[in-house]
Amino acid sequence: MSRLASSQNLIRATVACAVSLALANAASAADVVRYPLPGGSTFPIARAVEVPPGKTIIFHSGTTPAPLDPKAEVGTAAYWGDTKTQALSTFGRIKESLDSMGLTFGNVAAMTVYLVGDPAKGNKMDFEGFMAAYTQFFGTKEQPNLPARSTVQVAGLVAPGMLVEIEVQLVK
Amino acid sequence: MSRLASSQNLIRATVACAVSLALANAASAADVVRYPLPGGSTFPIARAVEVPPGKTIIFHSGTTPAPLDPKAEVGTAAYWGDTKTQALSTFGRIKESLDSMGLTFGNVAAMTVYLVGDPAKGNKMDFEGFMAAYTQFFGTKEQPNLPARSTVQVAGLVAPGMLVEIEVQLVK
Amino acid sequence: MSRLASSQNLIRATVACAVSLALANAASAADVVRYPLPGGSTFPIARAVEVPPGKTIIFHSGTTPAPLDPKAEVGTAAYWGDTKTQALSTFGRIKESLDSMGLTFGNVAAMTVYLVGDPAKGNKMDFEGFMAAYTQFFGTKEQPNLPARSTVQVAGLVAPGMLVEIEVQLVK
Repeated sequence: MSRLASSQNLIRATVACAVSLALANAASAADVVRYPLPGGSTFPIARAVEVPPGKTIIFHSGTTPAPLDPKAEVGTAAYWGDTKTQALSTFGRIKESLDSMGLTFGNVAAMTVYLVGDPAKGNKMDFEGFMAAYTQFFGTKEQPNLPARSTVQVAGLVAPGMLVEIEVQLVK
Repeated sequence: MSRLASSQNLIRATVACAVSLALANAASAADVVRYPLPGGSTFPIARAVEVPPGKTIIFHSGTTPAPLDPKAEVGTAAYWGDTKTQALSTFGRIKESLDSMGLTFGNVAAMTVYLVGDPAKGNKMDFEGFMAAYTQFFGTKEQPNLPARSTVQVAGLVAPGMLVEIEVQLVK
Repeated sequence: MSRLASSQNLIRATVACAVSLALANAASAADVVRYPLPGGSTFPIARAVEVPPGKTIIFHSGTTPAPLDPKAEVGTAAYWGDTKTQALSTFGRIKESLDSMGLTFGNVAAMTVYLVGDPAKGNKMDFEGFMAAYTQFFGTKEQPNLPARSTVQVAGLVAPGMLVEIEVQLVK
């Protein structure tokens, strides 16, 4: 047997091994799948988001807003702002956090939104106000990735007057 | 050295590589483990559900019921039905969603149940009503897989009169 | 070609395969990353917890406390204890559960805390009472690992008078 033939065998073994590994890695590197809501709904959330093996999952703490006017009386609407204002502040803080981890809103796989009833809205959660903030960051031309989402009205958050807490799980 | 001997070496190298890969894949293909509640409890949830590496995780949006009687006055009990009715409708919608993704209730690893206090029950959540629906789909002879679960009473959901929202995380 | 040269080829093929597998395993065995809160905050939660591929994720059911005094009138503060007492009981039950699965509080990646307004605190959640229990188990010298966390006040839990339910997701 020639040295050449033996080298060819070595190459074949190495290629076989590499192909097997490539297939294994291909499975790991499959893309996140975002299933649309049924019935052609255009509401900007995903019905479900599928995370294949090989992805990194990031659990993010619930984020709350910064005061709109820290000089106002603590806990008042002047201090915190309304639901839309608080949601914009909260998304801004989440964005800063994601920036520092090399992530974007496009990496959000799931979101839980906790809203407190707004005294100015009969103590019902201001869902429209929240959506007015949300839609600036999700389902836009620049950022079309939609998360799976649940939104509930809770009885309260950690600080009086705080109306918004948003928790996200991310995938990269 | 004969060509045969060299081929045998090649085979040995390839087999060693294949065995290593098979072992790696075996680790990835480990089964989901569902830990029972302590003390021999027969309450039909798992204490914990363990998802080994190599699995696909699906985050599903919170699902709410369809109206029981869309002709009734919006937001009334006649419109939505009671907690059991709303939970049955919600599980039916989740089932449709899972069907379309090739999943079943047996793939549910975790569930968060958000119930609103039922005005007909002194504004307490109707936990029994919810369980009467839940137990039709989880812990049955046909579908014995139990999810890890949390159930809380929230202050409200997105639509007035809506008493049930159910969020699930799935694994396949 | 000598038998020695052919063996060297075999060794090279095997080493190439082993190195590839080692790299694949190294990726799988990457460590969990816990990102600190911004601004040098010493509040004992993580801003986010990153779970790399190759880890096992455990979804744990919401855990509630055992009665403090089962002989007291059911549902009263004497029966359940205050928020701190209930949180200590709940963490004790979670610890028992983790013990049985070979896990510790150090494996907690994410935590959702559902508190009910305490009638003795004007029906506001007793966040300080909860923290007095939490800080015995998280952010200590013995257990420095901090989870991503959300804490909300809900309208109620499964049993009257119950003020604490804690859900955790773990990683190993």
